Amino acid sequence: MNDLLDALTEEMSPLFGERWITSPSRLATFALSEGHHAKVTPSIVVQPETTEEVCTIMAATHRRGIPVVALGAGTSLEGNASPVERGITIDFGKMDRILEVSAPDMLCVVQPGVTRIDLNTELRTTGLFFPLDPGANATIGGMIATRASGTNAVRYGTMRETVLALKVVLPDGTLIKTGSRARKSAAGYDLTHLFTGSEGTLGLVVEATLRLHGIPEKILAGSFTFDTIEGAVSTVINTIQLGVGVARMELLDPAAIRACNAFSHLDLPELPTLFIELHGGEAIIEDQRMTIEAIGKDNGGRDFQMSSDADERNRLFRARHDALPAARATRPGAVVWSTDVCVPISHLSDAIASAHAAIADAGLTAPIVGHVGDGNFHVLFALDPDDQEERQRAERVNEALVDHALSVGGTCTGEHGIGLGKREALLREHGEGAVDLMRTLKRAIDPDARLNPGKIFAIAPQADAAKHD
Amino acid sequence: MNDLLDALTEEMSPLFGERWITSPSRLATFALSEGHHAKVTPSIVVQPETTEEVCTIMAATHRRGIPVVALGAGTSLEGNASPVERGITIDFGKMDRILEVSAPDMLCVVQPGVTRIDLNTELRTTGLFFPLDPGANATIGGMIATRASGTNAVRYGTMRETVLALKVVLPDGTLIKTGSRARKSAAGYDLTHLFTGSEGTLGLVVEATLRLHGIPEKILAGSFTFDTIEGAVSTVINTIQLGVGVARMELLDPAAIRACNAFSHLDLPELPTLFIELHGGEAIIEDQRMTIEAIGKDNGGRDFQMSSDADERNRLFRARHDALPAARATRPGAVVWSTDVCVPISHLSDAIASAHAAIADAGLTAPIVGHVGDGNFHVLFALDPDDQEERQRAERVNEALVDHALSVGGTCTGEHGIGLGKREALLREHGEGAVDLMRTLKRAIDPDARLNPGKIFAIAPQADAAKHD
Repeated sequence: MNDLLDALTEEMSPLFGERWITSPSRLATFALSEGHHAKVTPSIVVQPETTEEVCTIMAATHRRGIPVVALGAGTSLEGNASPVERGITIDFGKMDRILEVSAPDMLCVVQPGVTRIDLNTELRTTGLFFPLDPGANATIGGMIATRASGTNAVRYGTMRETVLALKVVLPDGTLIKTGSRARKSAAGYDLTHLFTGSEGTLGLVVEATLRLHGIPEKILAGSFTFDTIEGAVSTVINTIQLGVGVARMELLDPAAIRACNAFSHLDLPELPTLFIELHGGEAIIEDQRMTIEAIGKDNGGRDFQMSSDADERNRLFRARHDALPAARATRPGAVVWSTDVCVPISHLSDAIASAHAAIADAGLTAPIVGHVGDGNFHVLFALDPDDQEERQRAERVNEALVDHALSVGGTCTGEHGIGLGKREALLREHGEGAVDLMRTLKRAIDPDARLNPGKIFAIAPQADAAKHD
Repeated sequence: MNDLLDALTEEMSPLFGERWITSPSRLATFALSEGHHAKVTPSIVVQPETTEEVCTIMAATHRRGIPVVALGAGTSLEGNASPVERGITIDFGKMDRILEVSAPDMLCVVQPGVTRIDLNTELRTTGLFFPLDPGANATIGGMIATRASGTNAVRYGTMRETVLALKVVLPDGTLIKTGSRARKSAAGYDLTHLFTGSEGTLGLVVEATLRLHGIPEKILAGSFTFDTIEGAVSTVINTIQLGVGVARMELLDPAAIRACNAFSHLDLPELPTLFIELHGGEAIIEDQRMTIEAIGKDNGGRDFQMSSDADERNRLFRARHDALPAARATRPGAVVWSTDVCVPISHLSDAIASAHAAIADAGLTAPIVGHVGDGNFHVLFALDPDDQEERQRAERVNEALVDHALSVGGTCTGEHGIGLGKREALLREHGEGAVDLMRTLKRAIDPDARLNPGKIFAIAPQADAAKHD
């Protein structure tokens, strides 16, 4: 591989100049990954500025059989973009332009390297916004790769519902386009959804057409405390069943509130707390507020507070916004590992109760925060990076969470993706038959298994090809 | 093929008895297809009652290389389920059970042969409903196959947003499951969306988990007339931009209103007419009504009428409901051909104007009805089945509609699928690269090209394999 990479550098570095990176000190700055997976330094990084350059890179690496990993902001949590085999990393940071915003069609066309915050900054004058908000300031390309979402998927959907069309460079350098600008289509296989969530293992997204939403006339935010998780979850279930189009419904458990009180100098009651946000016109929001207040009180909710004032909204949501840094601060120097199961909401109380039992059994303390409108919740472990035994205990808790989620028809990952960390869980979730079919697709599109090797599948697609062919 | 089919009958008919159908008179009743494509009688029909039986059929036909076509209600419009090669047709009519309804999770699990109307009848006592309503009483399996929708996709989405999980029998008889009951997931390739819209060419759906919605507390329906299509379409655009969660927004052009006046003995003004339906609670609906009335009047709308009374709602929507039979009745004995382009809504006025010009140029008269909230509209040709020259003129209009839709970033089919009729259009829409990738997927999953041969691709996937392998 070293010879191949040297030959590639000889061919490519004249084309890319400073953007073909081989110096160890610069490469070290691309060892990006959040969470508990090891950070891996790429062998070579290239920074294309155009689609044509991406095609050139893909064709050249195709000829030489060199692995390729796509990198966005490097904020993924399951090692999704870690270059675990020697090869090249394509950093999309210089392909960060917003190519078009269409207000009447409520869509935009962007390059993959634009971050969600930069996109919203650019959109501010259009009356439109891009609602998806994973914790980090991820790039759109990265969010497409992991089928990301965030706190308001309950109203606006995930990347699955947001990506209308893509331009994708296939492993051999061919550029294709998928989807259209129409809001619906029955024209052939749904390639857009095949690439969305494929974690860079099938092709590289170089352009995306995204659905946008109107900035709400009014935003109302607030919170409720409950004596029990059940009370909070029943409030969520009743709210969704009544069709109240709530924008956010977030749960913090008592451990999460305790961490936030310490971190943000608050004195919130250390009880299960539901954070709610409503988006819409005056009359609709007021109607929703009354409905939710009634539902919450029926389910034992107390201390109901809501406000449309921006400062007051921020104060009320402070604990929710600070949950991740608060978890990190519970243990200075710790690595935070965020788990990610998602269950049908009728099973959410049980899933959280089962998580609390598993955390206690393992002798750990870990806050739980949840996008409960979707049934998605995260246990936030703050772990000593040098304590292997403690990490194994956290791993056992994670396994128990996944087992429980799968036993009730849920999924091992709501929004973080499979990456390196959930490869065995993928097999448990979908079964051999479906994962075999995923491998068949991978082999058909990337027969040399060059794209993001080691991700999604525990066994490289080629290694077990004999039994299929 | 005849020998192969005889051998298959010898093997299978003892297992299926009366449900293995080879008599010409019974087979003739399965020559089902709506619209302008020829009806084709299957060589053999089998009616499985269980998933296991479907696996048995698929394994047996796999061993013998026999083509297989899945059949639902037979109401598709592009010849999507016509058995154009000799082989067997699997009629899913006896797999019509509703296996489970979960009210708290707002989902149901059904067999593919249940029709949308039967599903809603069964759901009536649960407070939930299945909103998608293609014109015909299609089966769920057929609706999954064509990624169908109907009049209220603008609020509730299409089958793309509705199918949460599937059980699918692959060409070799392997049973797999895709998706989960979680509302979102980032676990591996999105196989659910790969099968949804694949028109039975990749595998056969034997079970589907579908998202349901709460029956609205109140329904308000009404209509507006406009002097121009632009006025009606601007009303739609403004309504959607303001985030009014309208349930239905349907347009009838003057020719459609004229046909409905004749058919249903109405005397509506022969002007572009917008039919609107709102779903929700009292206060929200009233707010939406006021907003829409203001928007409509700003855009020149007149004769605004709305009612929540069921009889009055039916009266107001009568013309919309009767549009298809009214088009058919304009010419007794005619075959109705419904076109199906879908464009970004900013281009909808132009697309309809271009359609009107093309219809006039061709010397035809044809009403236009549209699910305008989605940018999807249908030109309804009523054609003399024996007049080839007239049909060619309609074909030219259809080509012009597709060309125009593609030129503005739209799609050649919003909800009817590709089938036999849109195969060339698929290529024009997606380009060689993307369609090549679709063929690669087809070959990887169905290497013998046995499933629904001749559909989606103009050239059989195997016939052009040499140039890819």
